[in-house]
Amino acid sequence: MTPPLKVAVLGARGRMGAEAVKAVTAAEDMELVAALGRGEALERVLEAGATHLVDLTVPASTEANVRFAVEHGLHAVVGTTGWDEDRRAALAALLAGHPDTGVLIAPNFALGSVLASAFAARAARYFESVEIIELHHPDKVDAPSGTAVRTAQLVSAARAAAGVPAGPDATEHALDGARGADVGGVRVHSVRLRGLVAHQEVLLGGPGEQLTIRHDSYDRASFMPGVLLGLRSVAAHPGLTYGLDGYLELNA
Amino acid sequence: MTPPLKVAVLGARGRMGAEAVKAVTAAEDMELVAALGRGEALERVLEAGATHLVDLTVPASTEANVRFAVEHGLHAVVGTTGWDEDRRAALAALLAGHPDTGVLIAPNFALGSVLASAFAARAARYFESVEIIELHHPDKVDAPSGTAVRTAQLVSAARAAAGVPAGPDATEHALDGARGADVGGVRVHSVRLRGLVAHQEVLLGGPGEQLTIRHDSYDRASFMPGVLLGLRSVAAHPGLTYGLDGYLELNA
Amino acid sequence: MTPPLKVAVLGARGRMGAEAVKAVTAAEDMELVAALGRGEALERVLEAGATHLVDLTVPASTEANVRFAVEHGLHAVVGTTGWDEDRRAALAALLAGHPDTGVLIAPNFALGSVLASAFAARAARYFESVEIIELHHPDKVDAPSGTAVRTAQLVSAARAAAGVPAGPDATEHALDGARGADVGGVRVHSVRLRGLVAHQEVLLGGPGEQLTIRHDSYDRASFMPGVLLGLRSVAAHPGLTYGLDGYLELNA
Amino acid sequence: MTPPLKVAVLGARGRMGAEAVKAVTAAEDMELVAALGRGEALERVLEAGATHLVDLTVPASTEANVRFAVEHGLHAVVGTTGWDEDRRAALAALLAGHPDTGVLIAPNFALGSVLASAFAARAARYFESVEIIELHHPDKVDAPSGTAVRTAQLVSAARAAAGVPAGPDATEHALDGARGADVGGVRVHSVRLRGLVAHQEVLLGGPGEQLTIRHDSYDRASFMPGVLLGLRSVAAHPGLTYGLDGYLELNA
Repeated sequence: MTPPLKVAVLGARGRMGAEAVKAVTAAEDMELVAALGRGEALERVLEAGATHLVDLTVPASTEANVRFAVEHGLHAVVGTTGWDEDRRAALAALLAGHPDTGVLIAPNFALGSVLASAFAARAARYFESVEIIELHHPDKVDAPSGTAVRTAQLVSAARAAAGVPAGPDATEHALDGARGADVGGVRVHSVRLRGLVAHQEVLLGGPGEQLTIRHDSYDRASFMPGVLLGLRSVAAHPGLTYGLDGYLELNA
Repeated sequence: MTPPLKVAVLGARGRMGAEAVKAVTAAEDMELVAALGRGEALERVLEAGATHLVDLTVPASTEANVRFAVEHGLHAVVGTTGWDEDRRAALAALLAGHPDTGVLIAPNFALGSVLASAFAARAARYFESVEIIELHHPDKVDAPSGTAVRTAQLVSAARAAAGVPAGPDATEHALDGARGADVGGVRVHSVRLRGLVAHQEVLLGGPGEQLTIRHDSYDRASFMPGVLLGLRSVAAHPGLTYGLDGYLELNA
Repeated sequence: MTPPLKVAVLGARGRMGAEAVKAVTAAEDMELVAALGRGEALERVLEAGATHLVDLTVPASTEANVRFAVEHGLHAVVGTTGWDEDRRAALAALLAGHPDTGVLIAPNFALGSVLASAFAARAARYFESVEIIELHHPDKVDAPSGTAVRTAQLVSAARAAAGVPAGPDATEHALDGARGADVGGVRVHSVRLRGLVAHQEVLLGGPGEQLTIRHDSYDRASFMPGVLLGLRSVAAHPGLTYGLDGYLELNA
Repeated sequence: MTPPLKVAVLGARGRMGAEAVKAVTAAEDMELVAALGRGEALERVLEAGATHLVDLTVPASTEANVRFAVEHGLHAVVGTTGWDEDRRAALAALLAGHPDTGVLIAPNFALGSVLASAFAARAARYFESVEIIELHHPDKVDAPSGTAVRTAQLVSAARAAAGVPAGPDATEHALDGARGADVGGVRVHSVRLRGLVAHQEVLLGGPGEQLTIRHDSYDRASFMPGVLLGLRSVAAHPGLTYGLDGYLELNA
């Protein structure tokens, strides 16, 4: 039997971090060796003998945390936002000097959401029409959601690469806003409803048929299977991987 | 056993009229005694002994057809558009002089659609949030659909009558059109997708729960049960009834 | 301005009771005057000046609690299970002697669920086919859910009363269980899926169209608007009311 | 510009064949050179100069038709049923002697349905729970549908290959049939409803989230984009391909 992974969680007092502490503790093939909150010294991770680090902190500290991990040979799974292209390029350069170390930066750890986006992108070239409906609680400040915008961009790029023309639309008379927002030629509709959490549907239509790919997120527990999968896979993927789909076996 | 209703169909060569001819012929409690196309003389309806008339013609002729029916004591079920408030008032005045005759004018004969609108209006006061998504084939020229606009107006009026405030919405940053069209304070989203026919969802949300009322129309055959129900009920409802819901038993 | 309702919550340490305490406290037109846990003396409710009582206790104590309320002229809203026909008859008899006092016993306080059942029962006579799908988390021990069985019974009774025959079904070759459970002639399908909470769809089908009434319960917070509506309405409904729909204005 | 494909349709008087005639005629990159009904001589296909053949005939004649095509160097796209493993093995042997000729045999030409099954199989290993709901018109004689059984088998095989245990299910008390049919450990529920055509949902559930992959087939027109895609791709895939997914680019 393989020994358990020795995992340290950074940001352990936050909502996501607290979930990660529970999930790692419950996983039979992992051992939680450290759980650090804001301001606690990173050296404790080394003293605890961690081989893997989960970063669920804040944009201001995630870069320093991950560099520390890489420089000490720890694999890292990162859910903190703020990793723009410049930061990722700098991290990739650092990793070039540590060829055995892996880092996963994932904007989304919900397996269902990641799969939904990947499937939508693959299906998009085979249908005349694609539209997206995202539905969230009414306290959300942006519309459409970041996930919906990213999905629309993936769909749009896949259709462009396959030479698929814009979807048909004979609308002549429309009330303002009825046909949604245009993201790269893909219409995106944002519903805000008390009681909802986070939901998304990609609707693809061709003659006589419709394919719908829907994801419902009910609870932030939905991110934990993705975090654990990341921890189990990161050592086998040296270098920088951006997006959990890089670890999923989506090809038959 | 009651004798069958003697039914005449006007507009019998049109798409809806042809469906009505089939439906009346197949109904065990009805007899099709006349099926008139454009330009055929209305007197044939009398010669055939019709007691009930279905008008599925065009806005330019429907008013004369219905007046003819009323003046000769025939009950009429009308699916033709163009019956604005003025026309309906004039018809009601005519009917006042024929107290045994009934006329049903129905903008929509699909039972499921009529019920969906009625239920949405009744439920609207009990939820913080209501939004509408309508989905149609991409050859439709208007957005939102007429049914969606009417449903939103019913919902809006029901909420106003019960003193329910506008639904919560914290959106600060939105792409143009993402939040749909505003119809009386109700957000309406129009999806256009190859392969679809006519579909509508009313989504109602409160703390921790969602109620969804969805109608799918796959085929114009969906109008025929409503036409038959109208024919069976019209004699028992003298005067003018506007909307098929006037004949439905929606109260427990 | 009307003075706030003076509300006592029994079972205040349970999960539902704790939610009720929060909801009553937050309601501007109510004042929480007592919150009793198991074994605390009912007299405290009187000392606190309560006019309304919420019973969210256990089957063994709910009957005594409600009798106490009625005998002291308090209106009661009851969510505890165990109120079979015998108990309800005895309570109705007691209430006959207290003509100004109201009691609401509700097997379900989720407004959306109550409305979904009521709408399904009203629509059932207008469609050839009705089936029910209920979807729950996989830790549930019974299938179908109690709500699905009650909905099927309501649908079945409504169809029988209107003389609607059984739905069409040409199935000749079926794997065991494929067509669901038969509840009064209505097929009920039970899905068990990790991640779900409590969801139900009633599907009604006629020629060329489908009406779907779906309820999603994400959180037990969904019961609180119903509890508050019960508290606001109970004084205006003397005697025993069974089912929250007795307080809803479902008729246009 | 490439010259149009010269296509012959066999079974051109059947419902599917008539659709194929229309679709090939409408395709700008194809020329319909022959459309044969039952009993017409296959030689006419050669006289017409066809390079591609579509077989939409009957099980009794499809094998002879396809052998004829292969022996004369025509590529064939086959939608007729009846190609069991023995027949396919014999055809593959014949094709070994004609290394430039391609044959596609597809049990399903609806792109959305083929994609839905492929995605469900790929996603199945990442979720604790998977169940299938299929919904059809009530004149269907078998339950579950053939497509649902095949999807369940694909899902079951994918989970077995990845070592995923059976989905959790705490059901202790169940009405007969409530939990559906068991197909390789996957629960399948069959709904039969007037008005429906052919619909299927694969529901996948993990902690706090759900992924739903739904396909709606409204019209047999839905098969034509798949037939055309088959015709455009078959020459580039010498030998026998079973299943349209062999031509789809599902891997990123």
